[in-house]
Amino acid sequence: MRERTGRRGSGRRRGGNADAGDAIELATKKINQLEWRAVENPYGPMRVLSDEAIEKIHEASLTVLEEIGIDFLNPEARDVLRKAGADVAPEGNGERVRMDRDLVMEKIASVPKSFTLHARNPAHNLTMGGGHINFCAVASAPNCSDLDRGRRRGNFEDYENFLKISQQLNIVHLQGGYPVEPIDIPPRVRHLDALASMVKLTDKVFHAYSLGRERITDGIEIARIGRGVSQEQMDREPSLFTIINSNSPLKLDIPMLNGIMEMARRGQPFVLTPFTLSGAMAPVTIAGALAQQNAEALAGIAFSQMVNPGAPAMYGGFTSNVDMKSGAPAFGTPEYTRAAIIGGQLARRYGFPYRSSNVNASNAPDAQAAYESEMAIWGAVLGGANMVMHGAGWIEGGLCASFEKVVMDAEILQMMAEFLKPIEVTDETLAIDAMKDVGPGGHFFGTPHTLARYEDAFYAPMLSDWRNFETWEESGSIDATKRANQIYHDLLAEYEAPALDPAIAEELDAFVARRKEEGGAPEE
Amino acid sequence: MRERTGRRGSGRRRGGNADAGDAIELATKKINQLEWRAVENPYGPMRVLSDEAIEKIHEASLTVLEEIGIDFLNPEARDVLRKAGADVAPEGNGERVRMDRDLVMEKIASVPKSFTLHARNPAHNLTMGGGHINFCAVASAPNCSDLDRGRRRGNFEDYENFLKISQQLNIVHLQGGYPVEPIDIPPRVRHLDALASMVKLTDKVFHAYSLGRERITDGIEIARIGRGVSQEQMDREPSLFTIINSNSPLKLDIPMLNGIMEMARRGQPFVLTPFTLSGAMAPVTIAGALAQQNAEALAGIAFSQMVNPGAPAMYGGFTSNVDMKSGAPAFGTPEYTRAAIIGGQLARRYGFPYRSSNVNASNAPDAQAAYESEMAIWGAVLGGANMVMHGAGWIEGGLCASFEKVVMDAEILQMMAEFLKPIEVTDETLAIDAMKDVGPGGHFFGTPHTLARYEDAFYAPMLSDWRNFETWEESGSIDATKRANQIYHDLLAEYEAPALDPAIAEELDAFVARRKEEGGAPEE
Repeated sequence: MRERTGRRGSGRRRGGNADAGDAIELATKKINQLEWRAVENPYGPMRVLSDEAIEKIHEASLTVLEEIGIDFLNPEARDVLRKAGADVAPEGNGERVRMDRDLVMEKIASVPKSFTLHARNPAHNLTMGGGHINFCAVASAPNCSDLDRGRRRGNFEDYENFLKISQQLNIVHLQGGYPVEPIDIPPRVRHLDALASMVKLTDKVFHAYSLGRERITDGIEIARIGRGVSQEQMDREPSLFTIINSNSPLKLDIPMLNGIMEMARRGQPFVLTPFTLSGAMAPVTIAGALAQQNAEALAGIAFSQMVNPGAPAMYGGFTSNVDMKSGAPAFGTPEYTRAAIIGGQLARRYGFPYRSSNVNASNAPDAQAAYESEMAIWGAVLGGANMVMHGAGWIEGGLCASFEKVVMDAEILQMMAEFLKPIEVTDETLAIDAMKDVGPGGHFFGTPHTLARYEDAFYAPMLSDWRNFETWEESGSIDATKRANQIYHDLLAEYEAPALDPAIAEELDAFVARRKEEGGAPEE
Repeated sequence: MRERTGRRGSGRRRGGNADAGDAIELATKKINQLEWRAVENPYGPMRVLSDEAIEKIHEASLTVLEEIGIDFLNPEARDVLRKAGADVAPEGNGERVRMDRDLVMEKIASVPKSFTLHARNPAHNLTMGGGHINFCAVASAPNCSDLDRGRRRGNFEDYENFLKISQQLNIVHLQGGYPVEPIDIPPRVRHLDALASMVKLTDKVFHAYSLGRERITDGIEIARIGRGVSQEQMDREPSLFTIINSNSPLKLDIPMLNGIMEMARRGQPFVLTPFTLSGAMAPVTIAGALAQQNAEALAGIAFSQMVNPGAPAMYGGFTSNVDMKSGAPAFGTPEYTRAAIIGGQLARRYGFPYRSSNVNASNAPDAQAAYESEMAIWGAVLGGANMVMHGAGWIEGGLCASFEKVVMDAEILQMMAEFLKPIEVTDETLAIDAMKDVGPGGHFFGTPHTLARYEDAFYAPMLSDWRNFETWEESGSIDATKRANQIYHDLLAEYEAPALDPAIAEELDAFVARRKEEGGAPEE
């Protein structure tokens, strides 16, 4: 797989230079994309707040945990907390849990600073930590849309098409959940069909939802089968992840707490992401919303270490604001971008890997979607995020997955990956000799220095059209959104399923069949 | 002026809260924009290169100036250089000028680190230096376009409409040149009519082109008349600016050198911006293109200090790359963004104020225009730019000024200005008491903490539409580009010329009439 992906990318970048004898090159040369690679951020993360201000937020969040506390709705979780020394009333006397500062800080100390997420294709393993930045596909949209058929409720066919496209795109490092909810599959068995498709149609890391104990344990088992490893190896090697959203303000519900416990016990990572919309579920001030975000994240992460010290966990920042006129959530706003960067400062304060997102509130894959997404992605990059959820395809504040937006985001993410490539400064690249050769008034086309480097010198776009206006107009004045539509269809047409060991496919089918016979998972 | 602008902005932000008795509020309430303000970047600029790598580029560029040299096409300029100690052949023996490192470093030491640019409305004075970032309107496009009438050659009516719109938009701090070339005005007198309109239709700082000695001295005089100040005061107070593009590689032509000399003698600033397109007029490596950019900028700026030590000057970074398949210039690319940030590192190496740009290569004001522009603007912000040329309206690599793009960029720039607003972290904003009041599971709408702050808590957009999909669809599914079209027409409809002392208008008209009688300026 890796080899072929590599050759594709390379063939595409060089346009007409592909070897005509190579069928794969010919079949895929239309789409110009970067090769698969791990993306690392070589620049220091940005500091929007001073270290002193970060300490104030830290202290405020510890005060919240000590004095206000968090509602843990799950009795089993409260039992774990009680045993670990948290202030929990005897059962029957409420759900509030208070933790003192020392307990929180002692517990979170065992969280790994970095870990590897194993894909069923080892070439697609990912590092979560350090300077690594990994881009997820869109996740959890109830609707999807394209220019051809407009907006529609999620369904399994569109679900699988999103999987195929993000498998095709090398810049999409992992799946972040169901790109769109396949509501035509009954809820009791939906996770079985949906996750089986993740394994069959893609060979990248994926996500399982924490919607009850059965679903998350089924997800872990499907990931294990997909990788073809033993339970022991699985427990040592993080191989899928789950997002845990607190019910802001200051509440963790039963399925989410089950998700933390099941995943932590099996050594699988979760991302604790408070849904702190400033002005609605969090204070109207960004500092206050971040203090609350931090309190909720620390509570969930500290709890995971009570379940299994050393279990991998990530800190998720999702603080944004609502439109105070309408109450509608807004994303990719100036407040969002600053909160995303400060979220990274807070995560690093504790040594947690950090998750951010590519979000926007546009109703169409248009210029607003592009500029709000850019504000979000820059927030993620400058915040030192290790995982960028909803990397490709999100619009409408998450209510819709757009096929055109997947392509637009892939271009934006590729540009960001190239931006993060270190620049070589050597005698050769400083090119004084080339300048001597060319001299004042000359030009650098066709010089030896240029000829030796031009093929790979610059980023070659997938979506951007750099032809002159006249040529662009003659070919139909096709704007970026319409070109994205063409590319998405090309990607689907070119899709080939990644190789899967037939024995693994058989085991997977048998597991899904058995669990369906057992009735799947209880409805919520 | 300032008062009224202030009240407008405030009335717009608060929507229906405007006093019904105030006709101005009613007339302008449709367009929601920020108040005029100086924008400062409180965050440290980004370092894409290490200090060691910056020193290597610095040393390489000094070697270029010593060993290759620059062609100075203007004999008067060569005379200045010869007297200052540069290595210049006797007249008749070529145009090449070599400068040793010590001469360059000694001369550039007198450039002011910061200066004030005076507008005819003192409320619109600007600081060029430190953390200040000032956004220019689009400049120098030969064509313009809108959705109503498509793309057309520049003309005086569109020219004036662009001036009116950027006068209306508070986030546009200054004019960066002719937004579109008014080719229906004869070239000999075009600068007279065009600059007279700058004074009459706007009260912000503007730019005059260095296209021969006559045009630039006419520009200085028109700016002086507009401000109503004496020649002595004018010479002490920078009040307009000019862009000096070197003819890359390594060449400065006669009109540009006249521009530097006239402006420097009168204490007016120029921005030395090499046009270093990597792969065409500069080496195919970014490091090499930047070494050449730096050499050309240092040469022009050092020269200005030989003319008049202490004259204000700015360092312009414009390095981008060409598409190696077609030779077409590309903008807002990953290479461009890194070059923009490194340009800032180089400018600060010498203590020069820094100019960057908002550029893209899209043929339409679409999503590509938005994401390429974002890459450019983030490059400017992270590079610590003090002036962002082409801030609002540029598309097509500068071949077209788009009315819709002006509005789209204004939104993007406003978001960036808000992003740069420091976040307060105090007991009040940390909101522990508000969290106590609300408690787990509550919400923050309508709490005293929210009510006291909600009106100004968050950025309120001009162009972005945050309504839900259903409402947006019912009202016609209008995308961001079409909404920008509506806003541009609203801005034009609301335009009122800023107050101008009738004596100044009379003096200006008399000057223009006299200069027209004299035949204007010679054609190039």
